[in-house]
Amino acid sequence: MKVGIINVTGYSGMELARILHRHPDVDLVSVTGRSAAGQKLAEALPHLAELDLTIKNDLDSSVDLVFSSLPQVASAEACVPLVRGGIKVIDISADFRLHSAELYQQWYKAEHPAPDLLKSSVYGLSELDRDGVMAATLIANPGCYPEAALLALAPVVRAGLIEPDIIIDAKSGVSGAGRSPSMVTHFSEINENIFAYSVDGHRHLPEIVQELARMREGFQPSVIFTPHLIPMRRGILDSCYARFTPGAFASTAQATESIRELYNEFYKDETFVQVVSSPPQTKQTWGNNNCLIYPTVDPYTGGLKVFSVLDNLVKGAAGQAVQNMNLMSGFPENAGLEQLTIYP
Amino acid sequence: MKVGIINVTGYSGMELARILHRHPDVDLVSVTGRSAAGQKLAEALPHLAELDLTIKNDLDSSVDLVFSSLPQVASAEACVPLVRGGIKVIDISADFRLHSAELYQQWYKAEHPAPDLLKSSVYGLSELDRDGVMAATLIANPGCYPEAALLALAPVVRAGLIEPDIIIDAKSGVSGAGRSPSMVTHFSEINENIFAYSVDGHRHLPEIVQELARMREGFQPSVIFTPHLIPMRRGILDSCYARFTPGAFASTAQATESIRELYNEFYKDETFVQVVSSPPQTKQTWGNNNCLIYPTVDPYTGGLKVFSVLDNLVKGAAGQAVQNMNLMSGFPENAGLEQLTIYP
Amino acid sequence: MKVGIINVTGYSGMELARILHRHPDVDLVSVTGRSAAGQKLAEALPHLAELDLTIKNDLDSSVDLVFSSLPQVASAEACVPLVRGGIKVIDISADFRLHSAELYQQWYKAEHPAPDLLKSSVYGLSELDRDGVMAATLIANPGCYPEAALLALAPVVRAGLIEPDIIIDAKSGVSGAGRSPSMVTHFSEINENIFAYSVDGHRHLPEIVQELARMREGFQPSVIFTPHLIPMRRGILDSCYARFTPGAFASTAQATESIRELYNEFYKDETFVQVVSSPPQTKQTWGNNNCLIYPTVDPYTGGLKVFSVLDNLVKGAAGQAVQNMNLMSGFPENAGLEQLTIYP
Amino acid sequence: MKVGIINVTGYSGMELARILHRHPDVDLVSVTGRSAAGQKLAEALPHLAELDLTIKNDLDSSVDLVFSSLPQVASAEACVPLVRGGIKVIDISADFRLHSAELYQQWYKAEHPAPDLLKSSVYGLSELDRDGVMAATLIANPGCYPEAALLALAPVVRAGLIEPDIIIDAKSGVSGAGRSPSMVTHFSEINENIFAYSVDGHRHLPEIVQELARMREGFQPSVIFTPHLIPMRRGILDSCYARFTPGAFASTAQATESIRELYNEFYKDETFVQVVSSPPQTKQTWGNNNCLIYPTVDPYTGGLKVFSVLDNLVKGAAGQAVQNMNLMSGFPENAGLEQLTIYP
Repeated sequence: MKVGIINVTGYSGMELARILHRHPDVDLVSVTGRSAAGQKLAEALPHLAELDLTIKNDLDSSVDLVFSSLPQVASAEACVPLVRGGIKVIDISADFRLHSAELYQQWYKAEHPAPDLLKSSVYGLSELDRDGVMAATLIANPGCYPEAALLALAPVVRAGLIEPDIIIDAKSGVSGAGRSPSMVTHFSEINENIFAYSVDGHRHLPEIVQELARMREGFQPSVIFTPHLIPMRRGILDSCYARFTPGAFASTAQATESIRELYNEFYKDETFVQVVSSPPQTKQTWGNNNCLIYPTVDPYTGGLKVFSVLDNLVKGAAGQAVQNMNLMSGFPENAGLEQLTIYP
Repeated sequence: MKVGIINVTGYSGMELARILHRHPDVDLVSVTGRSAAGQKLAEALPHLAELDLTIKNDLDSSVDLVFSSLPQVASAEACVPLVRGGIKVIDISADFRLHSAELYQQWYKAEHPAPDLLKSSVYGLSELDRDGVMAATLIANPGCYPEAALLALAPVVRAGLIEPDIIIDAKSGVSGAGRSPSMVTHFSEINENIFAYSVDGHRHLPEIVQELARMREGFQPSVIFTPHLIPMRRGILDSCYARFTPGAFASTAQATESIRELYNEFYKDETFVQVVSSPPQTKQTWGNNNCLIYPTVDPYTGGLKVFSVLDNLVKGAAGQAVQNMNLMSGFPENAGLEQLTIYP
Repeated sequence: MKVGIINVTGYSGMELARILHRHPDVDLVSVTGRSAAGQKLAEALPHLAELDLTIKNDLDSSVDLVFSSLPQVASAEACVPLVRGGIKVIDISADFRLHSAELYQQWYKAEHPAPDLLKSSVYGLSELDRDGVMAATLIANPGCYPEAALLALAPVVRAGLIEPDIIIDAKSGVSGAGRSPSMVTHFSEINENIFAYSVDGHRHLPEIVQELARMREGFQPSVIFTPHLIPMRRGILDSCYARFTPGAFASTAQATESIRELYNEFYKDETFVQVVSSPPQTKQTWGNNNCLIYPTVDPYTGGLKVFSVLDNLVKGAAGQAVQNMNLMSGFPENAGLEQLTIYP
Repeated sequence: MKVGIINVTGYSGMELARILHRHPDVDLVSVTGRSAAGQKLAEALPHLAELDLTIKNDLDSSVDLVFSSLPQVASAEACVPLVRGGIKVIDISADFRLHSAELYQQWYKAEHPAPDLLKSSVYGLSELDRDGVMAATLIANPGCYPEAALLALAPVVRAGLIEPDIIIDAKSGVSGAGRSPSMVTHFSEINENIFAYSVDGHRHLPEIVQELARMREGFQPSVIFTPHLIPMRRGILDSCYARFTPGAFASTAQATESIRELYNEFYKDETFVQVVSSPPQTKQTWGNNNCLIYPTVDPYTGGLKVFSVLDNLVKGAAGQAVQNMNLMSGFPENAGLEQLTIYP
């Protein structure tokens, strides 16, 4: 199968190239990038020197599937003609995640160029909608924060065990802010520093709410989502807090045990989601496609706490995209994604 | 006034020495440290070479006030005879913070050597109990996490505006874990890493609950407190979440405005607490005694969010201790603490 | 004395403001900054909120001395009229360091606007030309790398003990690259990374060569200077290598001992230069005006190795500038510069 | 082929396990570790959870080849009986690198248990002694600093182009100091810090001298080697300085061109050594087995400068060991080592 990457020079684009290079079933045949057009990959991105490709302005024609790593809005413009032309597309940007054109307009301050595709696109969180992904022609790859939060909360939401008031306190490494230099990503500013941002509304919030609501008929989530930037390159930790529905469990002890069983059962067949027995560390997923989840019950208040970690550029972007491609194409779900974490 | 420091070789002890060196009204005349006893400060701690002192096993006799930077349990043992002997003591450890001997036993797994002093000690959060501190002879200096959380929540708790269910999602730099090397503080392990810890109960939890309860008659706080370790040296960020009491405000817009006014008014005369107008960054307090607080209302859920930052070794330890000493001694409250943040 | 800062919004400009705020003998009365003109300092630089100043496009008139923190070329343009107008100027940029207009043209790709001032400016490395600095009206503040290298090498060069072939392998934190965001200073790029740069010629090379040559009649230095960028914010370490002149010492043991004595004697009256007895660490000078120097003799080759560290924004920029101002103005040399290192 | 790892719980041991997991031609069947004996790998090292192995006190019997990641001295004791018993051994420690028992005694303060094996062991720097490695039964895997330095200098030393006075100024990430916690590796101490260490003699010095001397009949290297510790986890940069032999080149321009050609030719068939055209960055080799080398000539002095980078745990330890195993076993040299750099 021949695949292409639009905007290989961003962090998720180059991560896709790295992963696809080792994929046994696909050939990466075309890569684009505006600023570096005309350069060999080896020039623009020396760590990818082994891939003998030239960065172009536009995709070469003969590809079966395309990944878009463009920023929002620009990505929709690039993807729509491809989808209309019958090419499978996995969009790593946010342009096909919200199923409502009004909501898209509100959060992204742009009119969506193809509202019909908003309806038919599939939200590509493989573990929660494997059938949908397998049948999809246009995948909206999840945002990095929602990926971690939705995997952390799905078991209890689907089981109807928690109240709709949910708090997600999220922490991300700097690569999530993209490769373009800015004051926020300046080493001297962000090293030895942490702060909350977008506290009046981050674009991943409506995505989280939409997907939580889809998990259970009648569930109307009321979510506080606060992202924080921390001085590391890769990694996301979502700390999720919720209260159990009244009467859900007889005691905190019983809740603790039941919750562990529920999560273990829910993810028991998954390759990439591991329910762990102590708070996970982001570096335990450095460079691979895993998401580690630790659900527990607060012994003093009886509240639910779930901690989930992943590598924002792999399971939170490029790795999840390849996993989706594998499902869409009938490849083994973990093809190209077997790499162990590089530690320390 | 002559002062001494017990255990100057720990991070809060050496920070005390640094601050006291510039204090116009006190002489640091005696410092102790078990492992480095007999060495000059210049040998053991080259950055303090300007202080011409020798580290001793025990304090020299003639001091008016002593700071103890010993670990818990050991600190109580060292402080009790000093207090009994009429010397003013500021204990930076946790040994006199919990007013209940049973609670102390439960959380610190040791019998307290002087339960009577647990009753008479003053919790030294200057801004919230200035009169108490001024009259104290034994100060229990607050923990770093509680310091930030209590300052963040005091205005709304005292005003009776929030429900007792409170979530404190806290993030700390590594120096809070002390100077003794361990796997957790190993650079190769914690760099490019973040994780929650002590999720089944951190010792700062009962301290937070006790002090919140004291803020308002009948307030029975139910607190989830989750600390996280992040790859920086100094700095604490407490992200606090609560719901307003029903009917507290007519609208989210009104709540937002009222809350800002409340906080501005509450801290308007304070030197070290600043209410800021955007999410604060830990490095804005690097090396000084400030605590920056940003209260806001979530526009989607109407919930209260308060973010507070401070330098865990200054306002969260040594600086707060000097501020307490100033109040106890009739010095200007900011004596020795005027230093601006070093940035970047 | 009234002083002003041109371009307070850069890293050395804001560091100057921080230091001058505590200076007992001067008032900082005017600050400029192009992009932030019209803003209060508290807005543009929250960590300097205590300074009640508004950033202007141009200096207010009545100042006795001006610090310029502009980039090269722009700085000369701003400084020349001030100097001509009789105002004392300390230029932190590189515009008055090279005494030859030809050399300036060659390295800075611009014609110098006042070649006469190139001749009369004083290279402000206080410890090596205290009399010159005291009499100066225009100071060329040293570059950060040269500051460390020249202090490291002055004792042996002045004594005629080394051959002219010198290697300076220098390592700098990221703040030395300035505050403007770029790919090089992007956290995701420079964290967990080190590399040499400007290996075909860094602008600090001619400055080092010029000043080494001035140290001893007939000394014609042949210098290899290689700067490296490392993932920290502040700090410079210069590792200097040279060979002794034939017959300088009878043995390696004698050389080692003599060298230590020479350095101790050379710097024995200096406040800010300390000759230490083991390899110094950059963080031992974090935030203060010290330079730590460790000279030693390689036991296997008999070669000279000297390691020097300083904080590039203090002794390597703003602190050195204030030290120069103190000398020019008859203030105590360490006025405003007494702060101890903040550690860790 | 069945292989084992002695001391899998150290950084190079766990890195070996990670690489061998993906190796197509070998089965990792046995791993040992003193402190974690009895635990499953998933427990002791969660990032290796996919390897279903239990850590034992001693190797299970049936292995064809053993990697030892023990510390020096202990490693020799463990390896000698294996070698005597006919099992191939690759020792990642330093115990078989120095061919002289006297030198070993001098540098490692211990008597070598098998001086005869010091003579017959092969120094496993594959690119410089491929035939030797292929025929070896006991490999002394190179130290991380020497690996980078020897690859950087081999072309000019073998060609007889440089004088014997060589300076190697080396910088290493913290993982090179091993996994045991210490004050030196404490995050709060080493973050935002750099310093030289072992300036009176590092154990990698005699190894560098021995191997440089072997490169050319009559070459008697006089090496200054200075390692520095910097705040990153992985990565080594060796900055090497030397002078050309008199008359080697007609001009600096000719030297520059000739040197580039010489290096390109020397390494043109190598998979893992790349001669690059600008100063390499350590993170360009993060997690893979490459060594990037940039040779150049200083335009002002005509001196040779060579910069080489590698990942100290891969090409500087475990990856080099697997490369050696591949050569010894007739596998493709890059088997198991194809992974691209993870960037950023």
